[in-house]
Amino acid sequence: MPHIPLPDNVYGIRSLAAWRPETGKPLYELAEVLLRSPSGLPSGERELIAAFVSHRNECFYCKSSHAAAARYHFKDEKQTVDLVLDDYMHAPISDKLKALLTIAHRVQADARTVSPDDVTRAREQGATDRDIHDTVLIAAAFCMYNRYVDGLATVAPSAEDTKTWEQMGARMGSVGYVVPK
Amino acid sequence: MPHIPLPDNVYGIRSLAAWRPETGKPLYELAEVLLRSPSGLPSGERELIAAFVSHRNECFYCKSSHAAAARYHFKDEKQTVDLVLDDYMHAPISDKLKALLTIAHRVQADARTVSPDDVTRAREQGATDRDIHDTVLIAAAFCMYNRYVDGLATVAPSAEDTKTWEQMGARMGSVGYVVPK
Repeated sequence: MPHIPLPDNVYGIRSLAAWRPETGKPLYELAEVLLRSPSGLPSGERELIAAFVSHRNECFYCKSSHAAAARYHFKDEKQTVDLVLDDYMHAPISDKLKALLTIAHRVQADARTVSPDDVTRAREQGATDRDIHDTVLIAAAFCMYNRYVDGLATVAPSAEDTKTWEQMGARMGSVGYVVPK
Repeated sequence: MPHIPLPDNVYGIRSLAAWRPETGKPLYELAEVLLRSPSGLPSGERELIAAFVSHRNECFYCKSSHAAAARYHFKDEKQTVDLVLDDYMHAPISDKLKALLTIAHRVQADARTVSPDDVTRAREQGATDRDIHDTVLIAAAFCMYNRYVDGLATVAPSAEDTKTWEQMGARMGSVGYVVPK
């Protein structure tokens, strides 16, 4: 049960944005810019970084929803998303994305450990300054969203309710991040 | 040295917001709403929660700047801010603020550990739903700002440069959070 009286039948951060729209607005705007605005990184890869960090933070709601959004973008028949969450270094993704996920991992654990070598390795695989910036900020932002959602004990659909997660991923991937009314 | 080519002579998150204004805008708007908009918690107490979480995350820039902002609000002659950062349970602050700092501490470490008992204790000391919500989101947001600033290795004034920190705290406490041009 949530720690504050959130609206019924609304999940995760949507229930929080409905309860406090003044903070919901910049939080949704940040997600929209980070995950969907024009970028060298496709939205599917950015959603995957979000899901990966949420998985490391063990935030069930954010992991499940952003994994669903990544699957929507990837039309994920080969289960790339699950393979990345399980063991990204051996998943069927580019070396550039692997290098960026290593940076995201460090930001999640202790951002001070992102080293010049980590950044050089990403650049050698084709990452731009903007890709590196956006990876760090996506990873940092999900360390916030994860804590916000879990710190107030918001509710989520069950893991078995695959249809609801799929619909959520499709909405996030097509409509994007719009504050719920 | 920063991991990406940030502007010279600009510190911490200000250098990042100048480099990428599209993300700077919602990040600054969030800080303004969280730390300065009308609330049951005085701005000084909210800045103190921000400094406390940044201190736990060992983010020198955010800890020093938000501690300076809290000192500005408190007109801190009795060094309350330092006493809170050092050992908040024995600092000269209200039991309500102690209960909220305990929640902030849990959010910083692992947000899933915020318990119904923690929330009940805060309510018994007079905390409202809004105070609890804002404490969780301030703590979560600084887990983002800290990682963003440190993950890209932004620069900061030295600890000895007390005049610059004081001026920064005064600006944050009076002008607030305005994206630098």
